[in-house]
Amino acid sequence: MRTLAVVGGGAVGLAVAWRAAESGWTVTVFDPAPASGASFVAGGMLAPLSEGWPGEDRVLEFGAAALAEWPAFGERLRAVSGESMFVAEQTLTVALDGADAADLRTVSQWLAGFGHDLRVLDRAGVRALEPALARTVRAGLLARTEPAVDNRRVLRALRAACAAAGVEVRAENVVALDDLPHDRVVLAAGARSAQLWPGLPVRPVKGEILRLRHRPGVRPPPARVIRARVHGRPVYMVPREDGIVVGATQYEAGFDTTVTVGGVRDLIADAEAILPGIGEYELAEANAGSRPGTPDNLPLLGPLDDRVLAATGHGRNGMLTLALTASLVPALLDGIISPVAELAAPQRFPAESLSSPGGVR
Amino acid sequence: MRTLAVVGGGAVGLAVAWRAAESGWTVTVFDPAPASGASFVAGGMLAPLSEGWPGEDRVLEFGAAALAEWPAFGERLRAVSGESMFVAEQTLTVALDGADAADLRTVSQWLAGFGHDLRVLDRAGVRALEPALARTVRAGLLARTEPAVDNRRVLRALRAACAAAGVEVRAENVVALDDLPHDRVVLAAGARSAQLWPGLPVRPVKGEILRLRHRPGVRPPPARVIRARVHGRPVYMVPREDGIVVGATQYEAGFDTTVTVGGVRDLIADAEAILPGIGEYELAEANAGSRPGTPDNLPLLGPLDDRVLAATGHGRNGMLTLALTASLVPALLDGIISPVAELAAPQRFPAESLSSPGGVR
Repeated sequence: MRTLAVVGGGAVGLAVAWRAAESGWTVTVFDPAPASGASFVAGGMLAPLSEGWPGEDRVLEFGAAALAEWPAFGERLRAVSGESMFVAEQTLTVALDGADAADLRTVSQWLAGFGHDLRVLDRAGVRALEPALARTVRAGLLARTEPAVDNRRVLRALRAACAAAGVEVRAENVVALDDLPHDRVVLAAGARSAQLWPGLPVRPVKGEILRLRHRPGVRPPPARVIRARVHGRPVYMVPREDGIVVGATQYEAGFDTTVTVGGVRDLIADAEAILPGIGEYELAEANAGSRPGTPDNLPLLGPLDDRVLAATGHGRNGMLTLALTASLVPALLDGIISPVAELAAPQRFPAESLSSPGGVR
Repeated sequence: MRTLAVVGGGAVGLAVAWRAAESGWTVTVFDPAPASGASFVAGGMLAPLSEGWPGEDRVLEFGAAALAEWPAFGERLRAVSGESMFVAEQTLTVALDGADAADLRTVSQWLAGFGHDLRVLDRAGVRALEPALARTVRAGLLARTEPAVDNRRVLRALRAACAAAGVEVRAENVVALDDLPHDRVVLAAGARSAQLWPGLPVRPVKGEILRLRHRPGVRPPPARVIRARVHGRPVYMVPREDGIVVGATQYEAGFDTTVTVGGVRDLIADAEAILPGIGEYELAEANAGSRPGTPDNLPLLGPLDDRVLAATGHGRNGMLTLALTASLVPALLDGIISPVAELAAPQRFPAESLSSPGGVR
């Protein structure tokens, strides 16, 4: 039986481990603190269309493929774990001014060119869907096929699925991939991946989020994911069973997961501009994570050498793309690179970035 | 040996228990969660002068007596616990507009009438003392004798002092004072005191605070306690070893210690108006407590019947007044009511408020 080490026990690592184990590998996950990193802090939007931007066609293609993978992935995960994960069925991006409204039309036309049918809404259309939104919202873009998941339920479900599939999760830190005796290695260490494969073009992108809890007597949260831009800053609100996740700030700050006063201030101000009732919600949690960013916002998914496979660099979209990543990894381990996997192939970056760690040390 | 039950293990209850034990009582403290209530959330200002207001002469008199008690109280507590508690030596109240500046002069003149010498500072005088304050600060009132303590160190010190004095702390809830077999009872249950003595004029006053942690490379916090009024809301910033406590919102909200989005938003905004650099601080904690308020902002300190003594209703000033309360209780247990204790005598309220709980049930 072939042995596989998965280095990193975030959502991506666990999903890869689960699916590899189901494909016949004997899998061990290594993470000093499994399920506690960026995926624990995530919002859980599955919104590659709403997040798309003209020119980023490859990001859209990879994200849309991941979204298409989610129903089957989610259903298998639910079946094996008993956990239901979806918290919203649609995504609504709103505009507060004329420039934002024009952007929504631009994005909608660009998406239509790829066959994605999003609906542009006027003021009345937005309010009919989500009456709790601010009266200053003047337009919207409705993505009827973009749901959201509760990231922490996904993590619970993945841990249960891993356990059921016989994956061993070891709370250990790996300092060198060469130390692992396994036949193959998947590097899924998120923002820390470049520490194990120096030169790998993945860096920490700090993001802060708030978790707001609904209180009795206060207006309930929107049913849909709400996205907007306020004072030039993107903000999103993702429903939860008991409230909303508000995200996310974005800083190039190195490995820093400190929640700052200014970050919390901005998130509250931006969220209140869109959803005026949230002042009465409980501020249940403020947290920060290090998202694994890449230069082109696509993951690094594919072989780094004969033994090591990268499954990292999922950026702000790990919850979305893990479904596709987990489906692709068993084939990649067998040397099969499908066209969609090609989009995320590490070899799109210069070879010197991807030299083996032995060569760099 | 006489036995004493202290109902309530907040700062006041622990301080009373310690001093009573030192006076020869066999003391048991009852609290389901000792040292976790309003005193855990407090800012720790010892500022009866800066907080004074013309007309509240009795509050000033009691508070000033408590402040005078603190040096000896604090030194005894330090000696027995090894804990040093002071985090600031002075208090500076600042004005952002002409009306606030006029108020500072009014308070200063009123205080001078009682022999308290506070210094009114102009813009330059304030900036010379505390250069990190906003340039919009136009006047200040410096209380050179008003320090601040770290409330959590005070709680630790009191627990150590109680242990050293042989006080037994039981994590038990008391539902009826009649159930206690002790010779005497001190009711120090804070905002919950009226549940044990129905009609007692003490109610919960919700207050939220933030704890901000200084980060490397960011301007350090002021050396003094800073108080101000922003948009009509009082705000204070109390130094800590590693940052600042920002307080406090104030609501009549019943027993509710939920931290709200709006409360955090206001505290950040008001603090930033005074201290612009704090956006870069870490938001380390947001918390809420139920202060035990009374109708006239003086505690309830004295006999309720032959057996039960009240030591409650310390409102927002528990950290200040506990020093005096703890000093007075041993004498009060012996039936001696000094003039300063008279100020806080429960009998200043109508007799029907203070009827024994047996009569009310």
